Amino acid sequence: MTFSPLAFRLLSTAQALPRRVVPTAEVAALCGVPADLAAARSGVQERRWLSGEETALTLGAQAARDALHAAHLEPQQIDVLLNASGTQLQPIPDGAALLARELGWSGNAAYSLHGTCLSFLLALHHAALLIGAGQARHVLIVSSEAGSLGLNFAHAESSLLIGDGAAAVVLGPAERPGQGLHAARFETYPEGADHTRIRAGGSLLNNRSPQIQDDDYLFEMQGLGVLKLASRVVPGFLERLRPGLSSGLPGIGRVVPHQASAAGLALMRRYGWPEDRVEVTLPHLGNVIAASVPLTLHQASTQGRAEEGETLLLVGTGAGLTAGGLIWQL
Amino acid sequence: MTFSPLAFRLLSTAQALPRRVVPTAEVAALCGVPADLAAARSGVQERRWLSGEETALTLGAQAARDALHAAHLEPQQIDVLLNASGTQLQPIPDGAALLARELGWSGNAAYSLHGTCLSFLLALHHAALLIGAGQARHVLIVSSEAGSLGLNFAHAESSLLIGDGAAAVVLGPAERPGQGLHAARFETYPEGADHTRIRAGGSLLNNRSPQIQDDDYLFEMQGLGVLKLASRVVPGFLERLRPGLSSGLPGIGRVVPHQASAAGLALMRRYGWPEDRVEVTLPHLGNVIAASVPLTLHQASTQGRAEEGETLLLVGTGAGLTAGGLIWQL
Repeated sequence: MTFSPLAFRLLSTAQALPRRVVPTAEVAALCGVPADLAAARSGVQERRWLSGEETALTLGAQAARDALHAAHLEPQQIDVLLNASGTQLQPIPDGAALLARELGWSGNAAYSLHGTCLSFLLALHHAALLIGAGQARHVLIVSSEAGSLGLNFAHAESSLLIGDGAAAVVLGPAERPGQGLHAARFETYPEGADHTRIRAGGSLLNNRSPQIQDDDYLFEMQGLGVLKLASRVVPGFLERLRPGLSSGLPGIGRVVPHQASAAGLALMRRYGWPEDRVEVTLPHLGNVIAASVPLTLHQASTQGRAEEGETLLLVGTGAGLTAGGLIWQL
Repeated sequence: MTFSPLAFRLLSTAQALPRRVVPTAEVAALCGVPADLAAARSGVQERRWLSGEETALTLGAQAARDALHAAHLEPQQIDVLLNASGTQLQPIPDGAALLARELGWSGNAAYSLHGTCLSFLLALHHAALLIGAGQARHVLIVSSEAGSLGLNFAHAESSLLIGDGAAAVVLGPAERPGQGLHAARFETYPEGADHTRIRAGGSLLNNRSPQIQDDDYLFEMQGLGVLKLASRVVPGFLERLRPGLSSGLPGIGRVVPHQASAAGLALMRRYGWPEDRVEVTLPHLGNVIAASVPLTLHQASTQGRAEEGETLLLVGTGAGLTAGGLIWQL
């Protein structure tokens, strides 16, 4: 299909991080592995974890408030609040309604897009469709994660990666020709569905299932399986997103990738993407699931590496296995 | 905002129901209430519940296969598979990836839209945006529910309502002028967030929370609270969806409502909507959460009450409290 650009503009970004900084040595000790090896292997030096009264809800609402403030908008000017989080706040009602309540809003549209680590990319595409079609003027996207609550310290590989945190962005109508989304693509390869999973907590396996075990509620990852499948499918995916992307950055100024792991980021070097054009937050935030991309966008934006007119590639892989990418002129 | 119509067309519908038919007398006995009162109050005579090897995944995949077959399409012709279910299959990966695996697909886009009972309406709007913008040719939406697994028989009101089942639709490009979506609106009133809820199973309350109790995993509903809030907000919502809708059916041939409850359907009579223009499945299917609207659409479609050219109002309220509606010319 040809892709007609969707006109919209980034108005603001914000982040809300847990207070507690967790050094890799601390996680390594919980997992019973050497600290130096843990840091080198994971690529994570430290990450934030929820503590005290903090929840994914309080952090998500804080990021939303700050993004709204930075965009100089009032709640009633937001047509749609999109929750784009990998971790669920509560099974019913939807997390977007809980965020709206925490924010004190009433009457706005509020719902969720979900695709684990790629939820933010899905929500950004949806927002672009809404604003591009003239069906919304301002959209707020919130990604908020509490992955630390689902870690299994018997599995060092995944436990070392995951951080908590929230980020929010406000989007509005374009002001210049060319501003907006120029490509969007998602491909799911469910032969990798068991490579990253939390088995229990839905209708297929839950606290009523006779064979349930506590570990079934925790995150399992077969990193090597993910990498093998991603290595196989991502180059073709990139070429379908934009020809030339598997061997360079045609028309792209800056890459804002999902911070899956050190190995995941290393994969990007194979595509001929210069390291200084790839935004990185993994060493100090870890993999913050769906909040990873907007947190990385917030860093690029606040540090002058995502100015108006710049063309970004937002890209990553998530559980599924799903590959997703957006090409976005700011 | 003005709404520019989104051109697309319904290609097929399908349903997959559990084999086991559960008469209201059986649920009434589980709840310890008189059977005749139970049927009169809930408006449900019988519903289907999962049994044996059936799961929300097997039913969802069956509905998807049948819808695809009815649309004369092959899996590789479906650009996007949207999971639009209120109940989650598994926390990770997303249910759409699990559906894709069950179907034997690989490489299609697959992700979820979520807004509990209104998930199907959200997914239909998203599909209309994708097809209307020329970014997808064919979209498959699957809604599959296993709500019976989360019932608390100490609460007769909600236990009597919920049924299991799945439905799927295939959408494609418009063939006639006017065919497609003419209005879409969602409004969330989180002052009703506690009226319908499952508290446990997300990051806010889960099996690691010290105060967790088994009942926290079950569905709670304060029917009166829902009705009061809906009575207050729905008329204004309807007027914003289309002026005149709170006192009639301007330009609408048929209403396909979410089958929330007998009281919920009764509310519609207040708006001057003739009963013979409202499609009803509640008595034999109960409230099948997000699958309720596509199951009701499937009934209208297979029984000759949703022919090409007809204009439908798809409408309902769900947990949140969220009101949602689409005006769709077939």
